[in-house]
Amino acid sequence: MHRRLVSPSSSSFPSYSPRDFFRFEILYESTKSRARVGRIHTPHGPIDTPGFVPVGTNAALKGVTQQQADAAGVQLMFANSYHLLLQPGPDTIAAGGGLHKYMGRTRPLITDSGGFQVFSLAYGSVHEELTMKGAGRSGNQGKYREGPSSVAKITEEGVVFKSYRDGRKITLTPESSVQIQKAYGADIIIPFDELPPYHITPEKLEASVHRTHRWEARSLKEHLKNVQNQAMYGVIHGGVDYKLRQESIEYISSLPFDGHAIGGSIGKDRQEMFDLLEFVMPKLPREKPIHLLGIADEPSLHGCVPMGIDTFDSCYPTRAGRHGTVFSTTRGRMHLIRGKHARDFGPIDDNCDCPACKHHSVAYIHHLFKAHEPNGMMLATLHNVHYMTRLMAQFRQDILDNKI
Amino acid sequence: MHRRLVSPSSSSFPSYSPRDFFRFEILYESTKSRARVGRIHTPHGPIDTPGFVPVGTNAALKGVTQQQADAAGVQLMFANSYHLLLQPGPDTIAAGGGLHKYMGRTRPLITDSGGFQVFSLAYGSVHEELTMKGAGRSGNQGKYREGPSSVAKITEEGVVFKSYRDGRKITLTPESSVQIQKAYGADIIIPFDELPPYHITPEKLEASVHRTHRWEARSLKEHLKNVQNQAMYGVIHGGVDYKLRQESIEYISSLPFDGHAIGGSIGKDRQEMFDLLEFVMPKLPREKPIHLLGIADEPSLHGCVPMGIDTFDSCYPTRAGRHGTVFSTTRGRMHLIRGKHARDFGPIDDNCDCPACKHHSVAYIHHLFKAHEPNGMMLATLHNVHYMTRLMAQFRQDILDNKI
Repeated sequence: MHRRLVSPSSSSFPSYSPRDFFRFEILYESTKSRARVGRIHTPHGPIDTPGFVPVGTNAALKGVTQQQADAAGVQLMFANSYHLLLQPGPDTIAAGGGLHKYMGRTRPLITDSGGFQVFSLAYGSVHEELTMKGAGRSGNQGKYREGPSSVAKITEEGVVFKSYRDGRKITLTPESSVQIQKAYGADIIIPFDELPPYHITPEKLEASVHRTHRWEARSLKEHLKNVQNQAMYGVIHGGVDYKLRQESIEYISSLPFDGHAIGGSIGKDRQEMFDLLEFVMPKLPREKPIHLLGIADEPSLHGCVPMGIDTFDSCYPTRAGRHGTVFSTTRGRMHLIRGKHARDFGPIDDNCDCPACKHHSVAYIHHLFKAHEPNGMMLATLHNVHYMTRLMAQFRQDILDNKI
Repeated sequence: MHRRLVSPSSSSFPSYSPRDFFRFEILYESTKSRARVGRIHTPHGPIDTPGFVPVGTNAALKGVTQQQADAAGVQLMFANSYHLLLQPGPDTIAAGGGLHKYMGRTRPLITDSGGFQVFSLAYGSVHEELTMKGAGRSGNQGKYREGPSSVAKITEEGVVFKSYRDGRKITLTPESSVQIQKAYGADIIIPFDELPPYHITPEKLEASVHRTHRWEARSLKEHLKNVQNQAMYGVIHGGVDYKLRQESIEYISSLPFDGHAIGGSIGKDRQEMFDLLEFVMPKLPREKPIHLLGIADEPSLHGCVPMGIDTFDSCYPTRAGRHGTVFSTTRGRMHLIRGKHARDFGPIDDNCDCPACKHHSVAYIHHLFKAHEPNGMMLATLHNVHYMTRLMAQFRQDILDNKI
């Protein structure tokens, strides 16, 4: 057993050579910052960077069809391995010809390892943790929070957890996570990692990062047996411990991954995140694409784009829309359900050409929410997706204009 | 008061002359039946007949955008005055430029009087009544069922009811119903009528029909004060009492309405409805369009189209889709949520070119329903709307080919 606790050396992997099916092209590098405009070429088409990646958890963007997402300019979409593992299951997706065909999507897809959700259930999500107040929060410091006992067991081998759907026990290991993602067939896949909570002892964090390194190496080995035109991004861990982050960058970037993702707890607030990313970003290889996991709010984007991060996923813009909060370049953020919008006959955003803004007023969408009509969340979500893709296009233009 | 209990004679109205904004053109009359292919010209474009009219109760077709409805070939859409009266209210709709502009619809709209919903709440809907079993049903015979006390009072003047939203008392009269519909501005409006229950004494039914005649005449008088490019259809009542139906046809068709609708209880089952319509249809003027209120299931359409009914509204196709039941020319009716569809990788309908059938399999839509993803009901509803418009196009072709 002891031998397995050492991370496999990079020399046990083939050295990285460019893929014919996956290529990151840097079109322009700012002279003002580390920002760059690029294009990731995948088997299902290009991804312009910096780019926003909406999250279609269950192989669907809630309230927005694939065709509407295409029209909104969505290129890369995220789907969650964990949810798809429980329903409809990788076998069904494989029988349906893979995730693209199954969900009727022609453009690029990225899936995660499933680890994030499993460990979020175990520890509570980072987001929950950061928004916990008082005793609950401080009381949690330094130890793993006990989850709703969905995670039965974490071992070197992997994790055993109970399905929230039917209670059956499921084992997820680096190898099985990759096999699941092989069955899905997304263009970009993620190695199995652990998401330890923000509040954790240094010793436990270190042990977790080292185990995650071993898990990522095993994931990569499994992936390389059958690459299947999929790219794999190595995930940098280490929480807010700079020494561990340094170690993680060195180890993960020594392996032949196709790109990098920044994962784990990245700070209790935006400033701590910015500080951490300022430390991390200059140390990552510039020639491979870099993805920031789970963050795409606008203030974070303004901070992160100049650091050279290329893609950002978040379920926030779609979730906000679904609950009636929309973004607007002309009016700021609006909660459409507020009574003051009942006779607000202008569009959400004067500069937006999305179907919601072209055909409907704030007052109408307000009415739809008040009347519990599903078209309210459909239109608000569609608008927010348009807003995000337009925002990213603006970032790309600003970089090309050397404004960023 | 007694004077008001006599229906105003048709001689107190101007005689009907064709409108410049509303015209019913009969393109072909079958030599085999009373079926006809026609076109209703409205200020917001044509309605090809026989035509299906989906119901967008709250000024929205649940799960289907206006643009998707247009693409599906929907021409006339129904919206419910009662729901829109409570939310967002006629003043808000008028302030937003009328219902078309408010809801972002460029094609024709029809609104009802609000009476149907008010009285459905009072008596229970006809549908509920017909599906009630045993004691509950027979125990209801011959008397008005007490509703959830939403209707406070029915008088010659109109009806006072409580809003189910906030409990406030609202008075609906023939005049106010028309004024509300003036504020909405739909292309076709309906005079205020009462919907008595199927199980009612002959005396009460007769009193109700006569009162409805007086209400319809008052509605028409109110409408003619300010026609506002709107057409008004007179509603034929009389339940399943042929003598009263005869009387209602004679009275209503003597007034200068732009078309006719068949309302009230039309039978406890499809055969009783067919028998009643066989009696009614030859007696209605052929040169004006005829609408059947609330019925558009496929077996009913097969019976009713040959009788010469021109438009049919129903919330059934969209409600069925929303709950996972879809129609298919190649596979019959399917309940998508059934486990057997989990690996059913073909489309709902091989002959359908709707976005659901073009891009997605039954298995995927099944998964969306199982995962409670809103896109499931969006795709299934969109498909059913396509199915209905295609079915009506087929009816028109079959009439033109003299097959019907």
